[in-house]
Amino acid sequence: MFRERLDRVRARMADAGVDLLLLSVGADLPWLTGYEAMPLERLTMLVVPRDATATLVVARLEAPRVEERPDVFSLRPWEETEDPVSIVASLVGTGARRVAVGDQTWARFVVDLQHALPDAQWSRATPITGPLRMVKDAAEVDALRAAAHAVDGIATAMRDVRFEGRTEAELSRELVDRMLAAGHERANFAIVATAANAASPHHEASSRVVERGDVVLCDFGGTMRGYCSDITRMFAVGEPDPEVRETYGVLVDAQERAFRAATVGTPCEQVDKVARDAIADAGLGDRFIHRTGHGIGLDAHEDPYLVTGNASPIEAGNAFSIEPGIYLPGRFGLRLEDIVVATAAGPERLNDAPRDLAVVE
Amino acid sequence: MFRERLDRVRARMADAGVDLLLLSVGADLPWLTGYEAMPLERLTMLVVPRDATATLVVARLEAPRVEERPDVFSLRPWEETEDPVSIVASLVGTGARRVAVGDQTWARFVVDLQHALPDAQWSRATPITGPLRMVKDAAEVDALRAAAHAVDGIATAMRDVRFEGRTEAELSRELVDRMLAAGHERANFAIVATAANAASPHHEASSRVVERGDVVLCDFGGTMRGYCSDITRMFAVGEPDPEVRETYGVLVDAQERAFRAATVGTPCEQVDKVARDAIADAGLGDRFIHRTGHGIGLDAHEDPYLVTGNASPIEAGNAFSIEPGIYLPGRFGLRLEDIVVATAAGPERLNDAPRDLAVVE
Repeated sequence: MFRERLDRVRARMADAGVDLLLLSVGADLPWLTGYEAMPLERLTMLVVPRDATATLVVARLEAPRVEERPDVFSLRPWEETEDPVSIVASLVGTGARRVAVGDQTWARFVVDLQHALPDAQWSRATPITGPLRMVKDAAEVDALRAAAHAVDGIATAMRDVRFEGRTEAELSRELVDRMLAAGHERANFAIVATAANAASPHHEASSRVVERGDVVLCDFGGTMRGYCSDITRMFAVGEPDPEVRETYGVLVDAQERAFRAATVGTPCEQVDKVARDAIADAGLGDRFIHRTGHGIGLDAHEDPYLVTGNASPIEAGNAFSIEPGIYLPGRFGLRLEDIVVATAAGPERLNDAPRDLAVVE
Repeated sequence: MFRERLDRVRARMADAGVDLLLLSVGADLPWLTGYEAMPLERLTMLVVPRDATATLVVARLEAPRVEERPDVFSLRPWEETEDPVSIVASLVGTGARRVAVGDQTWARFVVDLQHALPDAQWSRATPITGPLRMVKDAAEVDALRAAAHAVDGIATAMRDVRFEGRTEAELSRELVDRMLAAGHERANFAIVATAANAASPHHEASSRVVERGDVVLCDFGGTMRGYCSDITRMFAVGEPDPEVRETYGVLVDAQERAFRAATVGTPCEQVDKVARDAIADAGLGDRFIHRTGHGIGLDAHEDPYLVTGNASPIEAGNAFSIEPGIYLPGRFGLRLEDIVVATAAGPERLNDAPRDLAVVE
């Protein structure tokens, strides 16, 4: 599988006129090698020449963690007193090489490499790897489904949990614990935003205590067998204000419409427009302050983005969130999110936890 | 405090001939503003001109999380359909500007900014910020001490925990749970490496079950009130082999000697040499395969590094790990780590959990 991915990467490098690909921190590297670089000051970098053997440059003390794949790359461990930038530079070679570097590579290494390779031309790796990574194969969809299923169980279980009297931070911690207990190797985030706090889409869980009458937004996700989960569900502590129910109805309708619109061949921005129009039709257009969704896979956020300006058509195998929101500053915020896979037979939701507003204690 | 830090940063920019500082993901930004950028495809970047107001460019939906500090920076929220790179580029301005960029900034933004600013000259921000950040003030030392105290409690409590029959992954999970319960807002890592697995210094906790006779390395740390903890302690499941005890004795002695050597004015590499010589004198020099330590603060790893080649003298207020190790491939691995602060009165250990080899069930 890794060998076949490498061949496809090289074909795209040839099309794009890229001589070398340099991959470090981020999901391109595990997608291509099975190995994930630690986000450290010790450089890990895969050097992929278009026409020669790829080399993984890695600190000697990380090397035992690398599963070697001689058909994909050779290993170049570096000692604590060596300079890994020089090693990478020598593998790149001098002259006007066209180099594409992984999106999340640390700037310090880019800047140092640029000084070591003054004639190289630099671009981003994502135009090479992104279009390949965003078409998931069956095993990848299975992994996303398993991760989605795990958080569905948590979202459903939270309907029977007591919210009143607990802090946002405590509830966030419970979500983290449940993700780890449900088989996630990593919890990436667990937003718990109550009442007016939920009007900030990325609110950080605070010491605010949940009160009766609060509407609570829970948006959580992690990584399971390398692939990401991401779900948002809404909880009302006691019967909510009728305006909340009405607004939530607008949101559910917008999310359903966007889901149905996410068919193969539809421009990504059109899915965004469908959700946005539904909310605007209810007079709340200026309360939906973010894009409708993001791709998901090895990365929590990756191509394709469902956003104005992305005219690329949805392809079979694309996986993405559909997560419109409605935010009323000073009062409450609502969001509903599922992960969806585009298939030839139509969009398929990977999440199936109940989507109604859960009334909890 | 932030204003005073900004003034010192600007003085160093002037000395270094840097026109603008660009800070994104990483610890420079919270050190200078109190705000930490989320590691996302949505760009957050502080633009610091040497002689004009700093501007924090941040996605509109993150903006509510920013605590504004008009004396330090102004806010420029960007909408989902705006291009934040263009906004930053316009703040930088055209011409041969000398720009220093934060170490952990994502490469995608560096590459895009370089295309938008073809005449700018690029360098790293760390020569500006690093020497300032590595001298901790009293409040920072207190925060490091509190984080160290929290993990000391865990290291001590683990002496009464049953190891035999549990997997590395279960024990790692317990360390994570305990860090969160002890007040850490984030667990950064929890290495549990048993028997021969510990010969790999950064072993990833596996499904291997602990057996009687195993020697277990626990190296864990997280973030508490923004500052990092990092501790390594060793556990023997039942009375260990005499060779383990003997080798551990060499390690304890090496760590103690290095600790005593870490006085103000001593070159960082000298502390490394002291630990290395002590281990080499026992005939195990080639089994100590990493540097002796790293600085610690807002980042888990930051300046100063105790490594061959770093001749910089230790300064009062420097905080760093001292963590020699001895690794015997196929058999076992040992490491002992404390966080130490250099003071005019001599080095002070922030960790005080027992340092002897704990015999556990």
